[in-house]
Amino acid sequence: MLELGTCYYPEQWPEELWADDARRMVELGLTWVRVAEFSWALVEREEGVFDWAWLDKAVNILGEAGLQVVMCTPTAAPPRWLIDKHPEILPVDENGVTRKFGARRHYCFSSPIYLEYAAKIAEAFAKRYGKNQHVKAWQIDNEYGDHDTIYSYSPAAKQAFSHWLQQQYGSIDALNEAWGTCFWGMHYTSFEQVELPNNLVEEPSPSHLLDFYRFSSDQVVLFNRTQVDVLRKHVGNAPITHNFMGHNTDYDHYAVGNDIDFASWDSYPMGALVNAPKDDTEKARLLRVGLPDQPAFNHDLYRHVGKGKAWVMEQQPGPVNWARHNQSPQDGMIRLWTWLAYAHGIDVVCYFRWRQSKFAQEQFHTGLLLTNNEPDQAFWEVAQVAKECASLPETGARQKAQVALVLDYPSRWASHTLPQGADYSSAKVAMDWYATFSQFGVDIDIIGPHSDLTGYKLIILPDVIIDDPEFASRLKEAEAKVFLGPRTGSKTKHMHVAEPLPPGSFKTLIDLDVVRVESLPPYNQDQIFFEDYLGEVTNWRESLKSSETVLANFQSDYRDGQPALVGNAKCIYAAAHFDGEFQKKLAEYLVKWAGVEPHAGAQEGLRITQRGHLKFAFNFTSKVRKIELGSSVKTFVGGEQIPPFGVVIWSDEPDG
Amino acid sequence: MLELGTCYYPEQWPEELWADDARRMVELGLTWVRVAEFSWALVEREEGVFDWAWLDKAVNILGEAGLQVVMCTPTAAPPRWLIDKHPEILPVDENGVTRKFGARRHYCFSSPIYLEYAAKIAEAFAKRYGKNQHVKAWQIDNEYGDHDTIYSYSPAAKQAFSHWLQQQYGSIDALNEAWGTCFWGMHYTSFEQVELPNNLVEEPSPSHLLDFYRFSSDQVVLFNRTQVDVLRKHVGNAPITHNFMGHNTDYDHYAVGNDIDFASWDSYPMGALVNAPKDDTEKARLLRVGLPDQPAFNHDLYRHVGKGKAWVMEQQPGPVNWARHNQSPQDGMIRLWTWLAYAHGIDVVCYFRWRQSKFAQEQFHTGLLLTNNEPDQAFWEVAQVAKECASLPETGARQKAQVALVLDYPSRWASHTLPQGADYSSAKVAMDWYATFSQFGVDIDIIGPHSDLTGYKLIILPDVIIDDPEFASRLKEAEAKVFLGPRTGSKTKHMHVAEPLPPGSFKTLIDLDVVRVESLPPYNQDQIFFEDYLGEVTNWRESLKSSETVLANFQSDYRDGQPALVGNAKCIYAAAHFDGEFQKKLAEYLVKWAGVEPHAGAQEGLRITQRGHLKFAFNFTSKVRKIELGSSVKTFVGGEQIPPFGVVIWSDEPDG
Amino acid sequence: MLELGTCYYPEQWPEELWADDARRMVELGLTWVRVAEFSWALVEREEGVFDWAWLDKAVNILGEAGLQVVMCTPTAAPPRWLIDKHPEILPVDENGVTRKFGARRHYCFSSPIYLEYAAKIAEAFAKRYGKNQHVKAWQIDNEYGDHDTIYSYSPAAKQAFSHWLQQQYGSIDALNEAWGTCFWGMHYTSFEQVELPNNLVEEPSPSHLLDFYRFSSDQVVLFNRTQVDVLRKHVGNAPITHNFMGHNTDYDHYAVGNDIDFASWDSYPMGALVNAPKDDTEKARLLRVGLPDQPAFNHDLYRHVGKGKAWVMEQQPGPVNWARHNQSPQDGMIRLWTWLAYAHGIDVVCYFRWRQSKFAQEQFHTGLLLTNNEPDQAFWEVAQVAKECASLPETGARQKAQVALVLDYPSRWASHTLPQGADYSSAKVAMDWYATFSQFGVDIDIIGPHSDLTGYKLIILPDVIIDDPEFASRLKEAEAKVFLGPRTGSKTKHMHVAEPLPPGSFKTLIDLDVVRVESLPPYNQDQIFFEDYLGEVTNWRESLKSSETVLANFQSDYRDGQPALVGNAKCIYAAAHFDGEFQKKLAEYLVKWAGVEPHAGAQEGLRITQRGHLKFAFNFTSKVRKIELGSSVKTFVGGEQIPPFGVVIWSDEPDG
Repeated sequence: MLELGTCYYPEQWPEELWADDARRMVELGLTWVRVAEFSWALVEREEGVFDWAWLDKAVNILGEAGLQVVMCTPTAAPPRWLIDKHPEILPVDENGVTRKFGARRHYCFSSPIYLEYAAKIAEAFAKRYGKNQHVKAWQIDNEYGDHDTIYSYSPAAKQAFSHWLQQQYGSIDALNEAWGTCFWGMHYTSFEQVELPNNLVEEPSPSHLLDFYRFSSDQVVLFNRTQVDVLRKHVGNAPITHNFMGHNTDYDHYAVGNDIDFASWDSYPMGALVNAPKDDTEKARLLRVGLPDQPAFNHDLYRHVGKGKAWVMEQQPGPVNWARHNQSPQDGMIRLWTWLAYAHGIDVVCYFRWRQSKFAQEQFHTGLLLTNNEPDQAFWEVAQVAKECASLPETGARQKAQVALVLDYPSRWASHTLPQGADYSSAKVAMDWYATFSQFGVDIDIIGPHSDLTGYKLIILPDVIIDDPEFASRLKEAEAKVFLGPRTGSKTKHMHVAEPLPPGSFKTLIDLDVVRVESLPPYNQDQIFFEDYLGEVTNWRESLKSSETVLANFQSDYRDGQPALVGNAKCIYAAAHFDGEFQKKLAEYLVKWAGVEPHAGAQEGLRITQRGHLKFAFNFTSKVRKIELGSSVKTFVGGEQIPPFGVVIWSDEPDG
Repeated sequence: MLELGTCYYPEQWPEELWADDARRMVELGLTWVRVAEFSWALVEREEGVFDWAWLDKAVNILGEAGLQVVMCTPTAAPPRWLIDKHPEILPVDENGVTRKFGARRHYCFSSPIYLEYAAKIAEAFAKRYGKNQHVKAWQIDNEYGDHDTIYSYSPAAKQAFSHWLQQQYGSIDALNEAWGTCFWGMHYTSFEQVELPNNLVEEPSPSHLLDFYRFSSDQVVLFNRTQVDVLRKHVGNAPITHNFMGHNTDYDHYAVGNDIDFASWDSYPMGALVNAPKDDTEKARLLRVGLPDQPAFNHDLYRHVGKGKAWVMEQQPGPVNWARHNQSPQDGMIRLWTWLAYAHGIDVVCYFRWRQSKFAQEQFHTGLLLTNNEPDQAFWEVAQVAKECASLPETGARQKAQVALVLDYPSRWASHTLPQGADYSSAKVAMDWYATFSQFGVDIDIIGPHSDLTGYKLIILPDVIIDDPEFASRLKEAEAKVFLGPRTGSKTKHMHVAEPLPPGSFKTLIDLDVVRVESLPPYNQDQIFFEDYLGEVTNWRESLKSSETVLANFQSDYRDGQPALVGNAKCIYAAAHFDGEFQKKLAEYLVKWAGVEPHAGAQEGLRITQRGHLKFAFNFTSKVRKIELGSSVKTFVGGEQIPPFGVVIWSDEPDG
Repeated sequence: MLELGTCYYPEQWPEELWADDARRMVELGLTWVRVAEFSWALVEREEGVFDWAWLDKAVNILGEAGLQVVMCTPTAAPPRWLIDKHPEILPVDENGVTRKFGARRHYCFSSPIYLEYAAKIAEAFAKRYGKNQHVKAWQIDNEYGDHDTIYSYSPAAKQAFSHWLQQQYGSIDALNEAWGTCFWGMHYTSFEQVELPNNLVEEPSPSHLLDFYRFSSDQVVLFNRTQVDVLRKHVGNAPITHNFMGHNTDYDHYAVGNDIDFASWDSYPMGALVNAPKDDTEKARLLRVGLPDQPAFNHDLYRHVGKGKAWVMEQQPGPVNWARHNQSPQDGMIRLWTWLAYAHGIDVVCYFRWRQSKFAQEQFHTGLLLTNNEPDQAFWEVAQVAKECASLPETGARQKAQVALVLDYPSRWASHTLPQGADYSSAKVAMDWYATFSQFGVDIDIIGPHSDLTGYKLIILPDVIIDDPEFASRLKEAEAKVFLGPRTGSKTKHMHVAEPLPPGSFKTLIDLDVVRVESLPPYNQDQIFFEDYLGEVTNWRESLKSSETVLANFQSDYRDGQPALVGNAKCIYAAAHFDGEFQKKLAEYLVKWAGVEPHAGAQEGLRITQRGHLKFAFNFTSKVRKIELGSSVKTFVGGEQIPPFGVVIWSDEPDG
């Protein structure tokens, strides 16, 4: 059953408030409370001098009131005394400027000194609270990658990168071969000569850059694993997590996920809308509900990262402070997002934060309570959710979907090393496919190239750029039908052109060669003609040679009539990206082709999905939406008339 | 009576021209000439070696011709030999890069070495010319803040900032408390640990940033006062000024104003238009007249900064060189601007510059004369003004207005520390209110929170962000009615959320709590419904809880019907910013509500104002405008038919 | 007769492929092959240790197959060991950041150490291949200026600049006078004090900046000449070239051209379109053909730079990798561009590159062959050209045009030192004039101010900013009529305002004084009225005093009716820049006025030009275009019906 929680900062409030806060949390229906992720400076006042008293007391008050505590290692905020002693742990930005103390995340993942300090403070926390009866889960650090902190260009990073390359390649000649350094005379004779890929005269070699991205990801994995190893020794069965972000893909989340017990992520749909590559008309329409599928996408992703177990560790409760503009969610959205999370397999939703801060950077960030301690809007919505929970039956884990969409981190990085067109975004490509299927009531799993493929009817590779013979072979053997977007398999692991031509190994699925690619500006006028429908080509077009059936053609003053979609019984390949309306048309086709059965009742602005035997409908519009539930259905929340921003939960099973 | 002058650079022209220049200035009707603000390198050729001869001669020629000289301290341009000896006086930009010699303003306000050198050269000038019979006024330095020079991130600035913090807080724990450093573990144990707020990983604490702004302002005040103190010893009764700029609010002008004898400012309306946050249609319409109220706003501001005494030290004479585009003012605008300045209380208008330079950065900047020494357009307009002056009666100082608008420098800085929305501009908010009232023929005084409030009927606080209990209390006691814009009183002095909630102390004027704020993107669709009129919400909206009368409501798909304007007999509070048309509607309401009597005759493109018993109308359009003056009126300049870009001056008093 | 070639990188392919590649090149009809411009690191493996074997072998294989080799000095890519030994040769960017190894062009032109190493490696290459029977031409370095590398702000550059200034001025007082350092107190007492013009507080003096541009250009000339001198000693009669770029004018190409035997340039029309300052509608229309006149302009320019001898050293063969977007040219464009080059006087066209690279930065850059060694589109088009060549008669050099357009490099730099308006582009002004005349079938020569003026009927000075008395005098004596655009002659050599007023010495051609200039924003509404036609003023407008005949007037609410075009029998002066439609109207007038006879048959999207007795028509549209050739004409390629992207070549001479 859904559990609720909040993020709490006892250090920011007078001790006199703590007991009352704990009491009100419990009364509201919360069972979890997260603490201490920025507490280092207040716990270790100077090196080796600890003040645990306040945190002991806070944990005790919270626990005694009936709450389960998520304790954090505080490594996202190294204290000032550590910077004084070791300024070399600071990160260095792409321009070569050292980023100073005064906010958070002021450390370089490649600093061996910091790694040691991080392990030490994690161990101190683990020893102190590992056996504490109230501490039921652990979070490591906070939001890796926030404020562009995965990449650092420090001397420590340079040294670690050299070392990493040596580990990867063994000999410098292997690197020369893998990177193609015979191009532009970039030949190396030792690993020490390899620069970090910033401040060059022109863009670096894509092989160089992709290896830097891989290296940087590995540094995060190592940093996280080091703390996991420390915690394991002291915390018994308490599960360990990290709170990921909704948009940062600068490191391999699957790899970090493999080292922890469950995944969690921080969900802020309002900022995600404002910053999204959508036009203003759509943003105006969705202003206070956000992109309906952005949270769902991430729930599904992190459920996979967490091997089936995921939380929302921070749920937006109202306006925040950090986006370009900070509008309010509609009243009702906090409840809607909470149930949406649960429907997509999330087990615990924690609201960030208990009470709005009176000071510092986030003072415009709302909470469940106002600064004056009175309830804010989200408080009442959480109360409603808690009440609704009580009437809901147990429903277990979310079932496997019929459709899977492949998100491959190295392919994401590959698209950054050679975007080829200025506005190419792999993130947008993936999100657009996810949203297009969701509109039809089709559930989707997000998977990686190494995931189990059994049971899927349709697997979507939106732009898995890196060729992967093993994955291609497993796809071929899987029962699923396969859709390949443009750029699939176009580059080898080291960012060479795939052989014999793209799509490389995926040619075993479909007989074609990509003989030309174009990145197209927004003002291009190419079209695609498919089943009496004329769509627009957006930013990418390929010329194919193929013996497969042509399903659609380009309509254009360039190579008019060329194949735009080709396919066979197993696999379809698209030679371009298209506008949203056309993508819908195509998704509809794919659903039929693969025999996928969507949930009934799909309509504009409504999302329908399922967890266990419970079905959910979410109304993202400001109008009442009606669905037919039938007479045999058991309704737990809401009914056939779904009010604006409303939720209905039902079961088709008689004793659901 | 209005006096006229010009800015002259004898060092840039052959000595042979000086006498003729002086003669022509006098013939033109000028009585003031400003000299020497960049003359240091030519006066002190190497350290301690002075060449006064040329400047002595120039001053003598000008003075003998009948001109009064404004002598400047030349500290805006430290000479190269000083940089050679003390490169550490150079300013450092926000990226940490030292800004080099080769233009002007290449000094850091926090350099104690430079402060000493500045005092020494000021003293040398003061001794040389303090008793000179021709030198009748002094200007210190030139345009503080030009080229973004208030903020410097040098080692000297860091040290001075530490010292300043120590002075402010006494103990580091007081700073930790005031800044809320328990947030993100930013705890300090000594003042030396506090960084300048640049190159951090994420935005600095707003308390940190606001203190840096306050510190930087104080450094300017100290720099200016040091020179004032030096001059006072030697210059007798000659008044001392500084020439402020029309858009820079990075330091507290009131504080600098308190140390000098009169204020002056540099008026360039063409660039102000081109750089203004207005749409292209409006800019096209106003292309060669500029924003009608931008110069007026600054005249009123600097009249207040100068405690009633203000000059325009530099008046744009034609196209300039420094804006994004540099169009010409309409023929007639130089005259119009001159009379506008006088009408708004300006006593002396000096034109920048006498003759267009043949070389260097400003060679595209026009003057009264062309480079070939023939008159340019402005010359003839100045001649006309001089002639008109002769027929005008004495009218004394500008009377107090019925409406006051509050400009609070720390609130401006507060809006920069936490803008919350990307396009939030306190400068725009203030200017829009000023312009809206001006269109109705309402005169406005610009005042600060410490100004005398007696006599006003209406006081406007557009967005005085920093809560100020004493000001709130004085407002309550004042006779004036009060209008509060959104964000009023929302932050404490140290950038905490005001207690119990915004508007903090201003709650004594009107019973309300701001329980939610939103910054809205330009594509938002919220509206306000007020007296049968539907306006658009622009970039800010608040949710209020209030027992006061609701005057207008929001119309929106979010919290539809919520109060947008609430008020009582004393005070009205607006919960949003609105579009220009609506603002006009609201201003009209406020004028009636407060019993303000506008000047008669207001119409599109016409501005009407008054100084003493003289009334002025200014036609900013390319059409003839007609006003009714009545038969008892005495007209001094122009008449009822006002030609394009024309001026009419009259008195309603029989023997005016 | 037209000769063809390609750029080949044997070092990037297995040796086994070389012989087959050579054979296929010859079979395709190629006679030239360029090699080795980035080969340094592979030839000189460590300092003084050479491995010539591979390059010897490659040259031998290519030569034995029948190809003539263009050997390059490899100085665009200094090897890593040289950076290890002398990191001080790296360039420094405008922010002061050293640009690192890892791409190409990582050297500072002012490094004396690098100059020595460059000379040494050039000499090693010259000695090795100077007498090689297969090496028939030499290229020095590669694309000076690519990746913004003309300007470096290194310590070496600062020292060299000081030295250069000393050479120019002799005494520091001469510099003070020439720069007008009495402005803003920028007075110097030694050359060492002069900073490089980056990271100043405000823009540098335009005299300072223009001298830095001149200095930087001179450094390139010196660098190039040093290698020329080395090569001359060893390479016998093999001609020497450099491959210029189509858009970089940061150094004086005429000066480099004077030191080499022929010019060559690298033609990439697709990227040139995408990056051009044109609106999206026009870009959409021209998406896959590019700006028709951009390649032609550069052919004409480099023919002049090469004193009549020019190659295209790199011809775009399909999509490339480096522009904002990288669309494909239409099928047929490679052929069209090749013939266009020949028509404009180009003797050899080499395609970049033989085979698309499998790795590194340019792997998306197409070639004649795909990565899998099969022919790509361009291969077939080159085959067609080669076949067509065989049927074409000899036609010799391109004849002198009737119209000349003056491109003056220092004037270009002058426009950068003081653009005065944000969007002012001398490159656009020149290209627009060239394209406007070309649309009428008028051939144009690009010339410099020192070029021979005899034989021209019309000479266009689009915006030759730097006043040049000798040029003015030669123009006056020439038979040609002269058109002067705004800004002509407005600045002296040292960036002072011209005397008595602009247009300076050009006043000897036409009696006028420019008494005011304006840079206007895009939303300005000024118009020009000329012969019943109303055009739009774009970004520049001047006020003239003139005794000459007024040909057109401004229509505007500012100085309505002022002269916009004035002229006499010899010379016409335009007081503004105008929109494209009006420019066409004006060009038509100028053509008639000067008695220029255009080629017959001009129509939309068609370009007609002539080389020797051969005439060419090029169809840049996707529609068939028809021209009347008459019965006496001999047609060599194509016919009266020109297919989309097609070419027709004919001779009006009976036995042509």
